[in-house]
Amino acid sequence: MFKPPKGTRDLEPDDMILRDKIIEKIKEIFERYGYLPLITPAFEELSTLTAKGGIGPEAVKQIYSFKDKAERELGLIYDLTVPLVRYITTNPDIKLPFKRYQISRVWRYEDISKGRYREFWQADIDIVGSSSMLADSEIIACAIDAFKNIGFKNFIIRLNNRKILSALIEYAGVDKNKIEDVLRTIDKFDKIGRKGVEEELLNIRKINKVSCDKILELIEIKGKPKDILKKAENIIKDIKIGIDGIKELNEIIFYLEKMEAIDVIKIDFSLARGLDYYTGPIFEVFIEENIGSLAGGGRYDKMIGLFSKKDIPAVGISLGLDRIVEIVKEKKIFELPKTNIKVFVIPVNKNLIPYALEISQKIRKEKINCIIDLMNRKLSKNFEYANSQKIPFVIIIGEKEIKQNKLRLRDMVTGKEELLDMKDIIKKLK
Amino acid sequence: MFKPPKGTRDLEPDDMILRDKIIEKIKEIFERYGYLPLITPAFEELSTLTAKGGIGPEAVKQIYSFKDKAERELGLIYDLTVPLVRYITTNPDIKLPFKRYQISRVWRYEDISKGRYREFWQADIDIVGSSSMLADSEIIACAIDAFKNIGFKNFIIRLNNRKILSALIEYAGVDKNKIEDVLRTIDKFDKIGRKGVEEELLNIRKINKVSCDKILELIEIKGKPKDILKKAENIIKDIKIGIDGIKELNEIIFYLEKMEAIDVIKIDFSLARGLDYYTGPIFEVFIEENIGSLAGGGRYDKMIGLFSKKDIPAVGISLGLDRIVEIVKEKKIFELPKTNIKVFVIPVNKNLIPYALEISQKIRKEKINCIIDLMNRKLSKNFEYANSQKIPFVIIIGEKEIKQNKLRLRDMVTGKEELLDMKDIIKKLK
Repeated sequence: MFKPPKGTRDLEPDDMILRDKIIEKIKEIFERYGYLPLITPAFEELSTLTAKGGIGPEAVKQIYSFKDKAERELGLIYDLTVPLVRYITTNPDIKLPFKRYQISRVWRYEDISKGRYREFWQADIDIVGSSSMLADSEIIACAIDAFKNIGFKNFIIRLNNRKILSALIEYAGVDKNKIEDVLRTIDKFDKIGRKGVEEELLNIRKINKVSCDKILELIEIKGKPKDILKKAENIIKDIKIGIDGIKELNEIIFYLEKMEAIDVIKIDFSLARGLDYYTGPIFEVFIEENIGSLAGGGRYDKMIGLFSKKDIPAVGISLGLDRIVEIVKEKKIFELPKTNIKVFVIPVNKNLIPYALEISQKIRKEKINCIIDLMNRKLSKNFEYANSQKIPFVIIIGEKEIKQNKLRLRDMVTGKEELLDMKDIIKKLK
Repeated sequence: MFKPPKGTRDLEPDDMILRDKIIEKIKEIFERYGYLPLITPAFEELSTLTAKGGIGPEAVKQIYSFKDKAERELGLIYDLTVPLVRYITTNPDIKLPFKRYQISRVWRYEDISKGRYREFWQADIDIVGSSSMLADSEIIACAIDAFKNIGFKNFIIRLNNRKILSALIEYAGVDKNKIEDVLRTIDKFDKIGRKGVEEELLNIRKINKVSCDKILELIEIKGKPKDILKKAENIIKDIKIGIDGIKELNEIIFYLEKMEAIDVIKIDFSLARGLDYYTGPIFEVFIEENIGSLAGGGRYDKMIGLFSKKDIPAVGISLGLDRIVEIVKEKKIFELPKTNIKVFVIPVNKNLIPYALEISQKIRKEKINCIIDLMNRKLSKNFEYANSQKIPFVIIIGEKEIKQNKLRLRDMVTGKEELLDMKDIIKKLK
């Protein structure tokens, strides 16, 4: 008994030290691009979270909902996009464009057998108010810089457009009632490959061979971004929405070139993304191995209008912080000490506590992270503790040393000890 | 419609910029004293939150409780202490002392008429495993340094001991069934004064005059910490638990002197603190005016034992972040710009967008926070926007300037413009 609730976990110090550093690196880039911090509440009115044009009925099933003592229906937030849309609706006079970042927890009652947690962290940026592809390009460029700033090297941005997917559906002649299913199958292309998609389309989705071939014709186009878009344009040239979508992606490609953020871009017509609210370009951040996406986003020009009756275009991306932390650990993208404590001050007997207190305060004044023995333990026990906590240095305070006006500094890695005065100790610890 | 749920609010960019800075200053000191970061889930099993020896029945009424889809009973966390105790119980082999900080939101269904929010932020430090008064002293010294690091100057630490309160009750001969009520009345001493307390004790709590006088005799002792403790010792010299309590406070005073953290300490026998779980020293941080406490904590040696059947002593303090942010704003303890955006790049026409993109990326590479016009607006509209956002500088990109290989930098405060090359602009912006 007394465990974290199923699907949640404690983020322990060694994990948190790394996570805080990653958050710091992400925030640095978000602010570099002019996104400002916003924190909305952990729960919203349930009617906000389930509103039409929002996350869609499948996602709504995963909301943790409850009533407050006044029988108000509430729900823990499912993502950071719907709360942003609600915030814009609450503040109709806000100056546009509104660019904000939000780094916080969200909650989904998900199937935990897939290694997913029900409480997890997202780091989102969004631009509200601009319909220009400049905004989509900036979101992508900023995400790229964030991943680079963390230290990621091998990642790609998969880029598609919901408009092109609509055109693909039309081109292939898919029945209206099968669109969702077909998109879900197409979305698996990078996981199950051509053969897997073909089989699923023909045998499970019951799509005819001609339609299936047309779908594969498009999603299998290979080449550089501009070449892929050119080829696709030739295929769907009669479908206006598709041509619009291709034009948008061409614009994004052009801007990203100017921003020197083009080398990781991959046009991928099989990318569909689950959430209902996207209306234009969509994108995901992948690292090479088959790990799934580390970030995903897109344009959602209709959602705010459905909330507030006033159409406002918007685009954003969400970084999945937990998976990023996992990959940073696994691939040793960077490593940090298990602790940020630098030195452990140990008085060898009770009488020396007052002196040890003075010493530790002096060390702290020098901005060095320092602890002192609070358990009145023997030296050997304290060494054990220091080792278990991976604290690099120990200061031993004994009567002999005090008489000489010195302190004994022990390097816990080498085991070497030196008799030093305070000034030299500070120098050494810094 | 579409507002934050009752009792909650959005923390908007100008508030968040200040809040983030305050959190940074608090974290710096917490880490200086060797506290490590821990984040526990936003909700716990309801049985954890309501466990005997925890927050107590009055507080339990304020928990936001709900069931997940598997009918598991859960509750949003009410404070950060119970989750810590649960964490220790979940990890029985953890090395002691365990010192952690946690800065996160907690939720209480409170009466919002008092200007309280139902979602608010706490910043806690706790030491688990040490029964020494060194630990209590360190918690107090660390809190003092945190407030000083934020910039607070006039604050005091009110210090008392639950053991002394027990002795006071015994000394005054208060009926067992009236203890809670009497303590609640005593706790108001700094708000309603001697007369208020006397009236409430006699007329509402129905305490006899002799008892009342004895209570006032103790809580009215004035003087320096050591003198107050001396006088109290003489009064309750026959009550062992009281003498123990006084001995503990004398020890804390002694240690805090050594830590140069004594000048803000005020012994105050009227301090009671609401939560049920305290067993020893208790303390609160007050600023001079009648604002209420900015932080509060104490020793809780029985709580972990009630959870895990193994007694482990603990002590901690919780800083109320929202009130701290409020006071920093009100008293202008420090001020920050409304935005952290340094410069706004504006191409005067569409053809110059590619060039403007290149420029903004160059500026960002220099670690300067920069935005670019995403709305394709006129110069005057963009100036308006820059002013509304309090962005200090604007770079205007026009054809004339490009031909000279220069950029026009406008100081939005003075309105002055200069024609500079990239190098000089970077210098100026840094």
